[in-house]
Amino acid sequence: MVYKKITLIGRSDESFDDAVDDAIDRAQNTLDNVHWIEVKELGVEIATVDTREYQAEVEVAFQLEEPQG
Amino acid sequence: MVYKKITLIGRSDESFDDAVDDAIDRAQNTLDNVHWIEVKELGVEIATVDTREYQAEVEVAFQLEEPQG
Amino acid sequence: MVYKKITLIGRSDESFDDAVDDAIDRAQNTLDNVHWIEVKELGVEIATVDTREYQAEVEVAFQLEEPQG
Amino acid sequence: MVYKKITLIGRSDESFDDAVDDAIDRAQNTLDNVHWIEVKELGVEIATVDTREYQAEVEVAFQLEEPQG
Amino acid sequence: MVYKKITLIGRSDESFDDAVDDAIDRAQNTLDNVHWIEVKELGVEIATVDTREYQAEVEVAFQLEEPQG
Amino acid sequence: MVYKKITLIGRSDESFDDAVDDAIDRAQNTLDNVHWIEVKELGVEIATVDTREYQAEVEVAFQLEEPQG
Amino acid sequence: MVYKKITLIGRSDESFDDAVDDAIDRAQNTLDNVHWIEVKELGVEIATVDTREYQAEVEVAFQLEEPQG
Amino acid sequence: MVYKKITLIGRSDESFDDAVDDAIDRAQNTLDNVHWIEVKELGVEIATVDTREYQAEVEVAFQLEEPQG
Amino acid sequence: MVYKKITLIGRSDESFDDAVDDAIDRAQNTLDNVHWIEVKELGVEIATVDTREYQAEVEVAFQLEEPQG
Amino acid sequence: MVYKKITLIGRSDESFDDAVDDAIDRAQNTLDNVHWIEVKELGVEIATVDTREYQAEVEVAFQLEEPQG
Amino acid sequence: MVYKKITLIGRSDESFDDAVDDAIDRAQNTLDNVHWIEVKELGVEIATVDTREYQAEVEVAFQLEEPQG
Amino acid sequence: MVYKKITLIGRSDESFDDAVDDAIDRAQNTLDNVHWIEVKELGVEIATVDTREYQAEVEVAFQLEEPQG
Repeated sequence: MVYKKITLIGRSDESFDDAVDDAIDRAQNTLDNVHWIEVKELGVEIATVDTREYQAEVEVAFQLEEPQG
Repeated sequence: MVYKKITLIGRSDESFDDAVDDAIDRAQNTLDNVHWIEVKELGVEIATVDTREYQAEVEVAFQLEEPQG
Repeated sequence: MVYKKITLIGRSDESFDDAVDDAIDRAQNTLDNVHWIEVKELGVEIATVDTREYQAEVEVAFQLEEPQG
Repeated sequence: MVYKKITLIGRSDESFDDAVDDAIDRAQNTLDNVHWIEVKELGVEIATVDTREYQAEVEVAFQLEEPQG
Repeated sequence: MVYKKITLIGRSDESFDDAVDDAIDRAQNTLDNVHWIEVKELGVEIATVDTREYQAEVEVAFQLEEPQG
Repeated sequence: MVYKKITLIGRSDESFDDAVDDAIDRAQNTLDNVHWIEVKELGVEIATVDTREYQAEVEVAFQLEEPQG
Repeated sequence: MVYKKITLIGRSDESFDDAVDDAIDRAQNTLDNVHWIEVKELGVEIATVDTREYQAEVEVAFQLEEPQG
Repeated sequence: MVYKKITLIGRSDESFDDAVDDAIDRAQNTLDNVHWIEVKELGVEIATVDTREYQAEVEVAFQLEEPQG
Repeated sequence: MVYKKITLIGRSDESFDDAVDDAIDRAQNTLDNVHWIEVKELGVEIATVDTREYQAEVEVAFQLEEPQG
Repeated sequence: MVYKKITLIGRSDESFDDAVDDAIDRAQNTLDNVHWIEVKELGVEIATVDTREYQAEVEVAFQLEEPQG
Repeated sequence: MVYKKITLIGRSDESFDDAVDDAIDRAQNTLDNVHWIEVKELGVEIATVDTREYQAEVEVAFQLEEPQG
Repeated sequence: MVYKKITLIGRSDESFDDAVDDAIDRAQNTLDNVHWIEVKELGVEIATVDTREYQAEVEVAFQLEEPQG
C-alpha cells in the first residue's frame, strides 16, 4: 500500500482556489484513491493569454493499487 | 516586549482564505495582541473527509505580556 | 530582449486573490509588457490596521525595452 | 477544529527510530488527539554524553479542543 | 539513456528503514533498472491508523528504455 | 528527557546582539533549563516605531520536565 | 487544460547544454505538447563511466490531453 | 498602496550592525516611506580590501506612491 | 558605497552561457560598475517560441553612485 | 577554540543507523574531539552494488587544536 | 587557480561579530590567501558553558596553491 | 569505505563547463578515487578581473582510503 505523488498545474481565469480545484478534478478523472494535495507554487500568466490566468502547481498523492500476482 | 510565534493549521470546506481566517479566529479566541500571520503551507485533504477540506498552515505572531515581578 | 523581475507586495481587505491583483494592477500602471508573476509569500497584517489586511509578495516579470542606439 | 504544531527533540541511545518514538511518547503523555508528526532534523550528540545519543527533531500536529463559550 | 525520477511514499508499522524498503520493493515490482533512491521526507501517521505508521517519501531514479524506431 | 523548541522575536533599539539577548532573557524568565538558541531571521522595523528597531527571530530549545506519575 | 510535470535526467559526454537537450529530446519523443523545462540539478558522474558524464536533472512541463467522455 | 522591495548590500569596516545601517541610510537618502528591512546574507570580504569589510545583503521594503492620474 | 542587486532573465537560441552573457550585456548597457552576477535559475522555453530558447535568471550586483549633496 | 565541520557519506548493507555510525566511526579513527554530527541526506544505491546500500551524508563537527606558537 | 571552501564555527563570550572574527583569525593562522567568508548560521550555546557563548558557522573561501610538477 | 565531500570553486574565462572541469581537474590532481561532483552555484566575476570570469562552486565526492592499522 504505497502512495505515489505526481505534479500537476491547474489553471483558471477566476482564482487560485479554482486553479487548485482544476488540478484535483483532473487527477480524479483518471486516478482512483486520490488522498491529498500540497500546493507548491502559485503564479499568474499574463502575456500569452487573453486575461489573467491563475495557475497552481500542486503535488497529488494517491494510493497505488497492488501489483497483480 | 517580545513576540512569540506559534504554528496553527486552519481548515475550511470553502476556500484557502477561509482556512487562513479559521486559524486567525482560533488564535484571537485565546490570545491577546495577535500582530500578524505568515502562510507556510497550503493543502487539500480529500480521502478522510466528506468533501475537499482546504488547509492552511500559518505562523501566528503575538506580543507576550511582561512577566510579573 | 531581456526580462526584468521586480518584487511588489499587494494588499487587500478582502482576499489573497485581490492582494495579488492589486500588485499586478500597480505593475501594469507603470510598466508595459508585464509577462507573468510568481507568488513568493502570503501573510495577514492585523495589529497596525483596522481589520485584517491580506498581503501577497509577488515577483513581476516584464520585458525590458531595447536600449536606444 | 484547528490543528496546532509544536517542535520536540526526542533522544535515544539506540537508534533514530527510538528517538522519534521518544518524542511521540512524550507528546502523547500530555496531549490528546496527536494526529501525525514530521521529522525535521536527525543528529547525533557525542561530546557531552557517555555514548552516542541519537536525536530527532520532529513537529507534532494535534487537534486543539474547541474554546469553551 | 535518460533517467526518470518518480516520487513514492512507502509505509511500515515497524521502522523508517522498512518504509523505505517498502517503496523500493514496489518500484522494483513494476520497473526495470531502478538505479538509486533519495529520501525526501520522513513522518509518522497516528490518528487514522491502528498504531504508528512510519512513512518515507522517496524519489526513485530508473533508466528509461530507448523509444523504439 | 525530551527538548522542546519555541520561537521568540527579541527586539532592541541598539543592535542585533541585544535583540537576541532580549529573547533569551525572556525565555529564561519563564523557563528552566534553556539549552541553546538558533537565529532564524534578522530584520529592522522602521515605519511603526520611533527609531530603528532591531529584531531577531530565534528558536529556543529547553529541556522538558518529566511528566509526573 | 492542465499541465503535468515529470522529472528526467539527461546525460552527455560533452556538456551540460547537451545533457539538457538530451532530456528534452527524450520527452518530445514520447510526449506531445512539451511547453517548458526547468533545470533542477547539474552534476558530473566520474567513477562508473569511461569519461566524465555531464548530467542535468530537469522538470519537463507538458499539457495533458483532455480525458475523453 | 503597494510596497516594493529592493535588494541592497551595505558595507562597513566595523561590524554587521553598521553594514545593515549603511544600507538603510542609503535607502532613506533616495526613498520616502521605507517601512522595514530583512537581512538575507552576511559575509566578510577580505582579499580585495585593506582590512575586513563586513557586508550585509538586505531587502528594503518601502511604500510606492500612487501613480498620478 | 552600497551595492544594489537587480534580477534579469537573459535569453538565447544557442546555450545557457549565451543567455547569461545576454543578461550581463544588457546590464552593462545601462549600468556602470557592474561587479558580479549570480545564476538563480536555468530553464528552456519551448511552446511559445520557434525553437528552444535557453533562459538564465541572474542577479546582477552593481555599485550605487553616491547621492549628491 | 574553533570547531570545523567536514562532510562524510557513511555506507551500510543493513540500515541507515549503521550508515550514520559508519561515518562517525571513520571520523573518530582520524580525528580527536568529535563533538556532534548532523544528517544531511539519506539515500539508497541499487544499480552499482550487489544489494541495497544505505547511505547517509553527515556533517561531522570537531574541535580544532590550537595552532602552536 | 581554484578556490576551496571550508566550514568553521567561531565562538565568543561577547558578540556575534567576535565569533565571526574568531573563525577568520583561525583560518588566517593556518591558511594563506583567505579571500572571503559567508555566514551560514548564528546561535548561542547556554547549558554547557559558564555564560552565553555566541557561535557563528561560516564558510571560508581561500585560493589553493598550484600543485607542484 | 566512506566518501568525503569537499567544496571547490573552479574558474574559467570561457564557459561554465570549463569552470566545472577546472574544479574536477584540480581535485583529480591531488585526490585518488574522485567519484562524482554536484554543482552548487554558478556565477560570473566582473569587476576585479580583466574579462568575465565564469565560476562554478562544486562539491567533489571521493572515496577515503582505509585508515591503516
